[in-house]
Amino acid sequence: MTPELDGERLLRRLDELAAVGADPAGGVTRLAYSPADVAGRDLVAGWLREAGCDVRVDAAGNLLGRLPGRAGLPAALGTGSHLDSVVEAGPLDGAYGVVAAVEVADAISRSGGLAHDLLVVGFSNEEGARGTPGMAGSLAVVGALTPEHLATPDDEGVPLARRLRDAGGDPGAIGTAVWADGDVEGWIELHVEQGPVLDAADLRIGVVTAITGRVTLDVVVTGVTNHAGTTPMPLRRDAAVAAAQVVLAVRDLAVEGGVRVATTGVVRAEPGVRNVVAGRAVVGVDLRDESDAAVDAAVAALGERAAAIGAATGTEVRLVPGSQVAAVAMDQRLRGCVAEAADALGLTRLDLPSGAGHDTQVVAARTPVAMIFVPSVGGISHAPAERTAPADLVHGARTLLAALRRADTLPAVSRPT
Amino acid sequence: MTPELDGERLLRRLDELAAVGADPAGGVTRLAYSPADVAGRDLVAGWLREAGCDVRVDAAGNLLGRLPGRAGLPAALGTGSHLDSVVEAGPLDGAYGVVAAVEVADAISRSGGLAHDLLVVGFSNEEGARGTPGMAGSLAVVGALTPEHLATPDDEGVPLARRLRDAGGDPGAIGTAVWADGDVEGWIELHVEQGPVLDAADLRIGVVTAITGRVTLDVVVTGVTNHAGTTPMPLRRDAAVAAAQVVLAVRDLAVEGGVRVATTGVVRAEPGVRNVVAGRAVVGVDLRDESDAAVDAAVAALGERAAAIGAATGTEVRLVPGSQVAAVAMDQRLRGCVAEAADALGLTRLDLPSGAGHDTQVVAARTPVAMIFVPSVGGISHAPAERTAPADLVHGARTLLAALRRADTLPAVSRPT
Repeated sequence: MTPELDGERLLRRLDELAAVGADPAGGVTRLAYSPADVAGRDLVAGWLREAGCDVRVDAAGNLLGRLPGRAGLPAALGTGSHLDSVVEAGPLDGAYGVVAAVEVADAISRSGGLAHDLLVVGFSNEEGARGTPGMAGSLAVVGALTPEHLATPDDEGVPLARRLRDAGGDPGAIGTAVWADGDVEGWIELHVEQGPVLDAADLRIGVVTAITGRVTLDVVVTGVTNHAGTTPMPLRRDAAVAAAQVVLAVRDLAVEGGVRVATTGVVRAEPGVRNVVAGRAVVGVDLRDESDAAVDAAVAALGERAAAIGAATGTEVRLVPGSQVAAVAMDQRLRGCVAEAADALGLTRLDLPSGAGHDTQVVAARTPVAMIFVPSVGGISHAPAERTAPADLVHGARTLLAALRRADTLPAVSRPT
Repeated sequence: MTPELDGERLLRRLDELAAVGADPAGGVTRLAYSPADVAGRDLVAGWLREAGCDVRVDAAGNLLGRLPGRAGLPAALGTGSHLDSVVEAGPLDGAYGVVAAVEVADAISRSGGLAHDLLVVGFSNEEGARGTPGMAGSLAVVGALTPEHLATPDDEGVPLARRLRDAGGDPGAIGTAVWADGDVEGWIELHVEQGPVLDAADLRIGVVTAITGRVTLDVVVTGVTNHAGTTPMPLRRDAAVAAAQVVLAVRDLAVEGGVRVATTGVVRAEPGVRNVVAGRAVVGVDLRDESDAAVDAAVAALGERAAAIGAATGTEVRLVPGSQVAAVAMDQRLRGCVAEAADALGLTRLDLPSGAGHDTQVVAARTPVAMIFVPSVGGISHAPAERTAPADLVHGARTLLAALRRADTLPAVSRPT
């Protein structure tokens, strides 16, 4: 009989970690590389040592705990998440995946270890606090944190390299943080969903299918500024009316099933006074789907709709490209391990994509990956009210433990050819 | 044979007046009560004296030139417009109606006068420069410029009374500027259209039917702020989508013939970032029509549409009242004088409402009124590019002259019972 994961201690330790960086304004603020961030890392490092791990901090400020395996295999299985937070965050985003990984390591340690080494990771700076490049820690382990990243000044004018050095990192030796091919043979991250799907459906475990690809762009409408009293309707080239049609066209890109989500968080008419027909308007668009082809098709469809709206309203409607991030599919076998683990534990589950970004999408460049979600009450995250039911927090950690045990026995993972 | 109006001098004097307050940034800036405004007033006062008028500046800073009539009647016929401008204005808004009135007075003087006295007025502060209450000069002559108006600080914190005093007015004796009932028996203002209707239709003279009533209001949408990546479309309460539907509903209030013009110059989603579903949005609305009942019906219809949009999008959509100004109808007999004058001069004409506000709507509280429009090239106004063809400027002044001559002979006006 394998020892069980200590659920009570998991919940207690989440509270202990949330107290590090508790914000007087509410919630938790552990900005990457801040004293609170370093203090949180030190706290978790102690727990990892207690669990029998060899602990170190790499040149990128990532916390790494390694629990030796029974078989002396060269490759490890990895799990973890990030330790930093946004301003006035909740207690779970990132922290949950790390603390649960500590408890998983402890349970595995008490049961005599896996065949593989187990690597527990607390990534640094996933959130991109103060305008620094986000996912800096995970980018470093895949060799993608560049000198340009390190030189980038944050919102306070301080380069990332200086922030990193202040937190015990070594920007000059950033290459030593890179995981060589084969160092890590599989990776599973446990995280709160940060969306309402599992909570609304009253399901316990989310088996992530992919981290969605994302395109951002601006739709810029150029009309003609006119007097709102003296310009008859047929003679107007009203940028606000065209922008309204663009907003509904973007929404339809998702409602009609083209992409999973389509959002217009920015809508702004200019000059922006009641008695002037708007001469210019901007609609900021965010499109996401697990299929990059679907995102591309949606952008193309929006381009056609924009031309039609321009023709109908006498305006010029132009798409100005923003950012583009490709979708990252989860590994089928590791997804299977997660699903089987949930089933074995009697936990209801749902396959769903992650609409938010995670370190796992970066780690995927180096190794097969999977993610486990637990319900976020009301879908709330990045706010002090971020919450997951205690029982769900324990369910998620147990699912991670069971999934890693299954992954440990996968033929192609445990016996590379 | 009555002497003709001097069209060449009219055009020359418009240029001379436009040179007073010529803005280095382009156009003309004669903000109310500024040194440039006073210099412009002084220039026009000289021309009025040359035309044979008794000239004075009243307590509200209005320039008044009175040409005695042949019949010794107690009541005058009035004409004029305003002398102040917005920032970087064109040369015609307001100034044209005053300079044309000077030339009309000159022509009438040379022909031996009307039966009535002719009162030429250059109103002060129609535009409400620097955030002062607009139409201050015309409000004063109808006794509606209140102590509250005079105490109101402008954008620079200076009360209107202080501005007025700096420009030679007398805020303490503002009541002396009031026109007694019967002082002025009819009023005709000549103005550039400031809209594209006459220019687009290639017509020479606009016979104004009414100054439209106007309602402003804000439509405030309250939804729920959510993560753009993790919130599925059916679980959103997207304020931006609801606001887009409101914009199109407002447009339809005019397109379907409910009101003459319906404008949404303000459209703003909040918090206003691409990756957040908007939790709040504001649409600023401006509705105008020559029928107050039509404006009221449009507001009621918008209220119903707002409720339906709220229900369909899961948001709260609320109408927040702004300002309300009633429509002012032009006097039928004076309109007739204008139409007959245009016809006699062989000028094509169109009945149309004024969508912009004018001193005439204030003067209407005291006396029957009419307005004459000439074409604005491209409908442009409140901008350095504001222009009217020279021939049209002369046509407009001649129409004003002929219309006043007809009004002078109207039974009920010339022979009050």
